[in-house]
Amino acid sequence: MVKVGIIGGTGYTGSELLRLLLRHPQAEVVAITSRAEAGKSVASLFPNLRHHADLTFSDPADEETLAACDVVFSATPNGVAAAHAPKLLARGVRMIDIAADFRLRDIAVWERWYGMSHPCPELVAEAVYGLPEIHREQIRTARLVANPGCYPTAVQLGFLPVVEAGLADPGSLVASAVSGLSGAGRGAHVPMLFCETAESVRAYNVSGHRHRPEIAQGLSMMAGQALDLVFVPHVAPLIRGMHATLTLRLVRTDLDIQALYEARYRDEPFVDVLPAGAHPDTRMMRGTNGCHIALHQPLPDRLVILVAIDNLTKGASGQAIQNFNLMFGFSEELGLSDIALFP
Amino acid sequence: MVKVGIIGGTGYTGSELLRLLLRHPQAEVVAITSRAEAGKSVASLFPNLRHHADLTFSDPADEETLAACDVVFSATPNGVAAAHAPKLLARGVRMIDIAADFRLRDIAVWERWYGMSHPCPELVAEAVYGLPEIHREQIRTARLVANPGCYPTAVQLGFLPVVEAGLADPGSLVASAVSGLSGAGRGAHVPMLFCETAESVRAYNVSGHRHRPEIAQGLSMMAGQALDLVFVPHVAPLIRGMHATLTLRLVRTDLDIQALYEARYRDEPFVDVLPAGAHPDTRMMRGTNGCHIALHQPLPDRLVILVAIDNLTKGASGQAIQNFNLMFGFSEELGLSDIALFP
Amino acid sequence: MVKVGIIGGTGYTGSELLRLLLRHPQAEVVAITSRAEAGKSVASLFPNLRHHADLTFSDPADEETLAACDVVFSATPNGVAAAHAPKLLARGVRMIDIAADFRLRDIAVWERWYGMSHPCPELVAEAVYGLPEIHREQIRTARLVANPGCYPTAVQLGFLPVVEAGLADPGSLVASAVSGLSGAGRGAHVPMLFCETAESVRAYNVSGHRHRPEIAQGLSMMAGQALDLVFVPHVAPLIRGMHATLTLRLVRTDLDIQALYEARYRDEPFVDVLPAGAHPDTRMMRGTNGCHIALHQPLPDRLVILVAIDNLTKGASGQAIQNFNLMFGFSEELGLSDIALFP
Amino acid sequence: MVKVGIIGGTGYTGSELLRLLLRHPQAEVVAITSRAEAGKSVASLFPNLRHHADLTFSDPADEETLAACDVVFSATPNGVAAAHAPKLLARGVRMIDIAADFRLRDIAVWERWYGMSHPCPELVAEAVYGLPEIHREQIRTARLVANPGCYPTAVQLGFLPVVEAGLADPGSLVASAVSGLSGAGRGAHVPMLFCETAESVRAYNVSGHRHRPEIAQGLSMMAGQALDLVFVPHVAPLIRGMHATLTLRLVRTDLDIQALYEARYRDEPFVDVLPAGAHPDTRMMRGTNGCHIALHQPLPDRLVILVAIDNLTKGASGQAIQNFNLMFGFSEELGLSDIALFP
Repeated sequence: MVKVGIIGGTGYTGSELLRLLLRHPQAEVVAITSRAEAGKSVASLFPNLRHHADLTFSDPADEETLAACDVVFSATPNGVAAAHAPKLLARGVRMIDIAADFRLRDIAVWERWYGMSHPCPELVAEAVYGLPEIHREQIRTARLVANPGCYPTAVQLGFLPVVEAGLADPGSLVASAVSGLSGAGRGAHVPMLFCETAESVRAYNVSGHRHRPEIAQGLSMMAGQALDLVFVPHVAPLIRGMHATLTLRLVRTDLDIQALYEARYRDEPFVDVLPAGAHPDTRMMRGTNGCHIALHQPLPDRLVILVAIDNLTKGASGQAIQNFNLMFGFSEELGLSDIALFP
Repeated sequence: MVKVGIIGGTGYTGSELLRLLLRHPQAEVVAITSRAEAGKSVASLFPNLRHHADLTFSDPADEETLAACDVVFSATPNGVAAAHAPKLLARGVRMIDIAADFRLRDIAVWERWYGMSHPCPELVAEAVYGLPEIHREQIRTARLVANPGCYPTAVQLGFLPVVEAGLADPGSLVASAVSGLSGAGRGAHVPMLFCETAESVRAYNVSGHRHRPEIAQGLSMMAGQALDLVFVPHVAPLIRGMHATLTLRLVRTDLDIQALYEARYRDEPFVDVLPAGAHPDTRMMRGTNGCHIALHQPLPDRLVILVAIDNLTKGASGQAIQNFNLMFGFSEELGLSDIALFP
Repeated sequence: MVKVGIIGGTGYTGSELLRLLLRHPQAEVVAITSRAEAGKSVASLFPNLRHHADLTFSDPADEETLAACDVVFSATPNGVAAAHAPKLLARGVRMIDIAADFRLRDIAVWERWYGMSHPCPELVAEAVYGLPEIHREQIRTARLVANPGCYPTAVQLGFLPVVEAGLADPGSLVASAVSGLSGAGRGAHVPMLFCETAESVRAYNVSGHRHRPEIAQGLSMMAGQALDLVFVPHVAPLIRGMHATLTLRLVRTDLDIQALYEARYRDEPFVDVLPAGAHPDTRMMRGTNGCHIALHQPLPDRLVILVAIDNLTKGASGQAIQNFNLMFGFSEELGLSDIALFP
Repeated sequence: MVKVGIIGGTGYTGSELLRLLLRHPQAEVVAITSRAEAGKSVASLFPNLRHHADLTFSDPADEETLAACDVVFSATPNGVAAAHAPKLLARGVRMIDIAADFRLRDIAVWERWYGMSHPCPELVAEAVYGLPEIHREQIRTARLVANPGCYPTAVQLGFLPVVEAGLADPGSLVASAVSGLSGAGRGAHVPMLFCETAESVRAYNVSGHRHRPEIAQGLSMMAGQALDLVFVPHVAPLIRGMHATLTLRLVRTDLDIQALYEARYRDEPFVDVLPAGAHPDTRMMRGTNGCHIALHQPLPDRLVILVAIDNLTKGASGQAIQNFNLMFGFSEELGLSDIALFP
């Protein structure tokens, strides 16, 4: 059994992490921290964990508890994981950061988008970007994994095969994505109240969203050249689910794009290329680590890629477990075999 | 008072039409037909109309009732309005078709997309496309108005100023739009059940949607050249509301696009260009005939246009009332001054 | 035109009040206060009011503005209206309090439930309880109206005819009611987030809710004897709407209860007794001041009364307008003729 | 491995059954029938089962397939299970009926409420009512289990301890319950469309619901005397979840009811009595076989019992698995250890 610690377990990614880890056959959660809730039982905060979790929140200042773990997941606001990382790594603890501290290679870009000095720039180069479909081998041996954001997961998995193959007109990439509201976290903010979000669709941060540089970094790496995109995030009234609609112009129209995608993802346990003509539905991914992709060519040289994931699972905590499995030599699907709740 | 008839008043566009007409100071609904509900009181079907409507559904076969009207709105499935039109127009009755029978100029294109022979091709040329922001003058004198579809209304109003000004790269237009579920109508279909749509976002008809040729026809007219687009419709779990996210490449980057839009829509009573940086929210249009537009340029040569309407009001029955007002010489806003229900 | 002021216009009852007053033909909103938003335009906070309201929030400390009004509505947290009332009444301003400051006759009971000393006990006896179906005549001449709570409106209107007639076993009254989430107000609280309320039904405050003494006071007055009830409030994932399910044992089973209700409410403009066997639906009241009631007798001596209102309209701001109309001699329905938005 | 067959696997209880059985370590689904979908793959109907189920719907007329099973679950409309039962039982197949064919002891009562002649009255007496908290021992050896309805499960578990103890005034029982919309099944009916159910709460079948005689039968058995109740079912806009609010008058007020409930359910693996003062929330049971109960005494002699379950799991297919586990000697919790999806 791997001894697991969690920093910041009171938000939605934290509770999703708990849900998955508590039933994972090779993980034992030995510590979970929360400054605000220290001393309270986890089940008192999350009644769905009654009789599943015999855990109490501890103070994150108590470093010894975390240092005794084999791995620590950080599900905290940006900047916190980076403050913990040097000490934990020095003590031999591996780390998976579900926030954004180690996702961007370029520290100046990170500091501009996240509005603070990077607390730990010296570890950025070592951190492995935890998208297993691209970086599987590096993840296996990583000390520090930067778990991707939800939008970057959906958008990169959608673009990957066609961009990798050099088939996309570099100036044509558009990603319009819709997220469930759990993506905004559990903070008490008026715009996230039921009465402000039900019966509502709206875009946000269209002039600039923190996930754009993360996506652009990934696309550039895939393409072997600098690549940018228009990225428009939206929210709609659902709890979980993320749907990305990607559009691009193909530089060649004589290839079988469906076959290209099926080949690229044939051995991936979680990415499923649907039959031609299909339309993925976010609810079919609910609570699972899966990713449904479907392809359309409404005009001969235009490709539309539809991607559905659960923003809290494949888009956050499920992918963190997938990375955990890789890091500790387990089957990549261990503890991630849930069937989506339908209806 | 204008004598008004309604063909097919049992669906969502029909009930929205009733809601608006019953309080319109210059309209008197004298007939409403329904094959299935003939003989029943309107309020028995729509409890929200108790004490507002003293009407009974009549059989559409009874032509005299409709022929005695000054104007007839058709809120029926495609093909029905076209079957009624010749006789009604011959009797001097003006007609506003909320379905698609007279929207496409090219009858061959219509027949391909709608899968039937056009019941009345001889009236297609005469019909005026009822988007007042473009065809206001022709609508005033029209005998037959083809009320635009919901997606075409949102997408055309969004693209209009920049396409009209010749600033859009013709091959770059992408429209990704999300509709509330009332757009699918009141038919009893499993995919529209609450349990199949809540907690779900999905695209549909990505390879081809009937509203694409309608939009392309409008864009081509604005541009003075053939123009096509990638159009991706989606549904999300809300009753009313349509959000369109439009993207294009600008052929010039030295112009003030915000000013261009504000100037184009300055005198429009229903189109409201929001301040730079805003994000329209569909719920702020709920039950109104308004259209909120906002502009973003996330990259110097890329324009993102955000559009919000209520698909049943500006996207259907409200716009029909706006056309009615124009046709009968009333103030364009008469009966359309509702404030959106918030929250 | 009556000059109207609003204290506290940033919450849901405030915005509903604005929606109704801005289109009321005899009301002119001349002042709206908000400590937090003073100086901002109302439309910047409520985009649905763009081009409908040319108003700016003013500081509530500026007493002259309010004192120049004919009537002031208070849509503030409990305790605030009572602090303003003495000065405003002394200046000849009439007042309608949508909060709870003047609803309970017994000041000791008020202080126990609301956890503070009453700021203005001397006006409690004068205040008229603003349920027009019971206190219409006193409301006409009132200086100070205590607008009922949402649950008390639905529950009292439901019980009124049968309790008034002495037909209810006094120990048998049970009210189980479900409220839309707008009833909880616009405060930024975690339990009211979309992700904490969607896909959820729960009861709250079952051991004691502030509306129970208000209902018990009303029932006792109707019955002419002390009457109490079991009152169980719930929330469900809808924005607006309140459904009350009332149960009691009849002391006589030989009477036509349907006829009793129809007679009692025959002349009421807003209370509508549905045909026997019907089931009211909250959405049919959405945005209206209506109240649908239906009756069932599943056992010969047991009466079930179903009541549907919109908690923000008949349950708060719409009823306040109804009281305003009575106070200023207008038709009771003036400005309250909206048809519920369907679907 | 137990060989399992499913009759009627295309509805919501069928898909929930599949979700649970496909991951059950001791069950192997060898047959699933559907008249309408025979020949299609299960995953084509339920995309959430892609790569989880390698099953094809077969024709229910093919009796040999089902006869080769150890146990058959029936998730069909009422009347179908009873038509299959005699032959299957004769072939040594055990049967769990998730519909209502064998729930009522009194065949005349059944025929009145279900509007047909009972297809197989001779097996009614043998059938065991599958509420393990009451009939655990009989279930172990049953050939034929009548799985309880969703409302009867929630209401009986809520009333059980206090009724069993003889503490309830027999004439005082009221159950007001709210169900998620999946309880209405997957049929294509207009009242179950998203646009007819969102933003809506309504009661239904208040004058008589089929689950009332089932509940009354259970209560009478617990009490050792004929007992009836007022039962008011409602729907609210959620997919899964059932909340029952039960009220009764206590004949004694000197007992610790909280302790009574805790003692009664101490050894039950799925029924959890929450701490005094709690309010169960349906979402905390989502997808699980759990039942949360909380108790309140708002007046000294009045007890309010709050019950939350998932209507498709403990209210249908999960309870069927619990019965299956008992029938085949497995741990009662086998395959039922899911943690509710939160948020």
